[in-house]
Amino acid sequence: MTPYEVRGKVDYDRLMEEFGTSELTVELASKLEKKCGKTHFLSRRIFYSHRDLDKVLSAWEEGKEFYLYTGRGPSGPVHLGHLMPWIFTKYLQECFEVKLIFQMTDDEKFLYSEGMNLEEAKKWAYENSLDVIALGFDPKRTEIIMDTEHISLLYEIAIKVAKKINFSLVKAVFGFDSSTNVGLIFFTSLQAAPAFLESERRGEKIPCLIPCAIDQDPHFRIARDVAPKLGYPKPSLILSKFFPSLSGANKMSSSSPEGSIYVTDSEEEVARKIRNAFTGGQATIKEQREKGGNPEICSVFQYYFYLFEEKDSKLMERMKSCKSGELLCGECKSELIERVLSFLRDHREKREKARDLMQEFVPEEFRD
Amino acid sequence: MTPYEVRGKVDYDRLMEEFGTSELTVELASKLEKKCGKTHFLSRRIFYSHRDLDKVLSAWEEGKEFYLYTGRGPSGPVHLGHLMPWIFTKYLQECFEVKLIFQMTDDEKFLYSEGMNLEEAKKWAYENSLDVIALGFDPKRTEIIMDTEHISLLYEIAIKVAKKINFSLVKAVFGFDSSTNVGLIFFTSLQAAPAFLESERRGEKIPCLIPCAIDQDPHFRIARDVAPKLGYPKPSLILSKFFPSLSGANKMSSSSPEGSIYVTDSEEEVARKIRNAFTGGQATIKEQREKGGNPEICSVFQYYFYLFEEKDSKLMERMKSCKSGELLCGECKSELIERVLSFLRDHREKREKARDLMQEFVPEEFRD
Repeated sequence: MTPYEVRGKVDYDRLMEEFGTSELTVELASKLEKKCGKTHFLSRRIFYSHRDLDKVLSAWEEGKEFYLYTGRGPSGPVHLGHLMPWIFTKYLQECFEVKLIFQMTDDEKFLYSEGMNLEEAKKWAYENSLDVIALGFDPKRTEIIMDTEHISLLYEIAIKVAKKINFSLVKAVFGFDSSTNVGLIFFTSLQAAPAFLESERRGEKIPCLIPCAIDQDPHFRIARDVAPKLGYPKPSLILSKFFPSLSGANKMSSSSPEGSIYVTDSEEEVARKIRNAFTGGQATIKEQREKGGNPEICSVFQYYFYLFEEKDSKLMERMKSCKSGELLCGECKSELIERVLSFLRDHREKREKARDLMQEFVPEEFRD
Repeated sequence: MTPYEVRGKVDYDRLMEEFGTSELTVELASKLEKKCGKTHFLSRRIFYSHRDLDKVLSAWEEGKEFYLYTGRGPSGPVHLGHLMPWIFTKYLQECFEVKLIFQMTDDEKFLYSEGMNLEEAKKWAYENSLDVIALGFDPKRTEIIMDTEHISLLYEIAIKVAKKINFSLVKAVFGFDSSTNVGLIFFTSLQAAPAFLESERRGEKIPCLIPCAIDQDPHFRIARDVAPKLGYPKPSLILSKFFPSLSGANKMSSSSPEGSIYVTDSEEEVARKIRNAFTGGQATIKEQREKGGNPEICSVFQYYFYLFEEKDSKLMERMKSCKSGELLCGECKSELIERVLSFLRDHREKREKARDLMQEFVPEEFRD
């Protein structure tokens, strides 16, 4: 797996082992929850792995500040899976009252997507920024960096990183070959840059914590290798699993629009996608009443698990009533449709208001 | 030969053939001289090759404007060999009254030179800009782009170029391999960008003419290949031979400081380097008087030929009196020392004044 290709069923433990990331232990999760409050993202091991999270938390306890960094490759409208790590990022920002740098890699998506022109990528960078802002990040503490527009903030750091990385490395890490374009070969240097930007701006080592899905780890593994050579602190990571697809649990969905719910989907589309979702139900109602459903493999249950039932007790109830045959898939789907639509209605309203807030999220160097 | 490695004796006809550039014929040179006035750079075939120079001149005659673009990799102080193509560029600017974009590739030199840090490369970019300005380019028509400082002007064009170039190509063209850093792999995209900048700025196809030494052709061959795919006109080139080294005719000198005269050399250093220069003289004065010298292989004669005797008749006289044994190497060197010192004194004076003019050469987007 690389950030450019995630396919098939994901074995998260194997991924962690392969990438060499650490398990986010109950102890470490508790430490975080003690400070920040309970969250199903931790109790359900949705964020389940990390690099040096303990270090950044220990340093924090000793009065050493840090900042958050995450991002998005703006290739189209965002779906619920994209929002998930950002919601967790907001939880961290609210808890620690720290700065967040959000990177929109319009350059990367342009370079990666054969058919996409730069104007489209920039349009999506703008559109996706509205979704970020709609989630309620603190405008006083949040900057959205558009790579192409704010390149001057990142370029010098990026070439310092680039000088330490050769083609062998990006070939091994990202699976690039001789036919890969030179922009994409260079790009990881730019994704590293925001992890060092605050250190560069302030002229001292400011630690950085990156919440993201685990497929982004290869970029930051490189950033971490390079950091000490450039006098920057290694960024810490807190890594999530992937938001499930409606076409079957535990699969990524970016290339199958039917498996994902986009913020731009109409209410009819949302309802249809959930109605057509893969479940753990039996073939007939009769059979379901007798044998019960199978929530472990059910994508609808996964939606509750990941985002739409934050209360553990309620989730347990749902699981039990599914397994007992009491809850039928139709009802369970109807409830999910209501929750998703309610979430989306609220999100869209905030998203429209976000248009007027864009200027507040511009990096400080670009403000009037 | 690549822009990153020029070694040994140069066979200029073979280079032209290898690179696939065209001969700058007497007819084409005459066309240029008819418009712009005589110059030894053309009559002596110092600028001796081109790509589509005829097209840009024909278009000009039909009222289609163009602009000039050249540059410098600021890795240290400039020597006379660096100034030569810029002096010719000034001749073109004065003749056609056109814009010149001058690119300082501080990023490239930082990425290329193992031991150089970015602050040094930026310092040299500033220092070398003073040399450019000292030559007298029209401030109303000349912009000096510092890659790191003005990256926002170039980055979007560069990634459009980068998307069309893969590792195979830069490997073949520049001799890169798996150990090459990813910044240098990307870099040629940035060197292409100024050739398209005016088209991008004005939203129409503005032809570009690039005067430079022939070792830069590989970069612009790539730029020319990519241009039509991006809707830009292919840049035209007018290509020079290399300024000779004092250690022997027809060799490059950037890595041997004794072979080059830098604008920062003291008067004593200049005198010493010329005194120690390789000549075509005989072993003794007696022998020289009898057999005469050999100007064809003499680096001192080459200095006159390339830069310090613009009058063809005077150059012929010098050659004859050398060959006849009338002119001794000592005298010939003394005269050259005087001419070089006189040039450098004047240049240094203008160079100091250039410090106050820097702001006038900043790209229009960065002016107050």
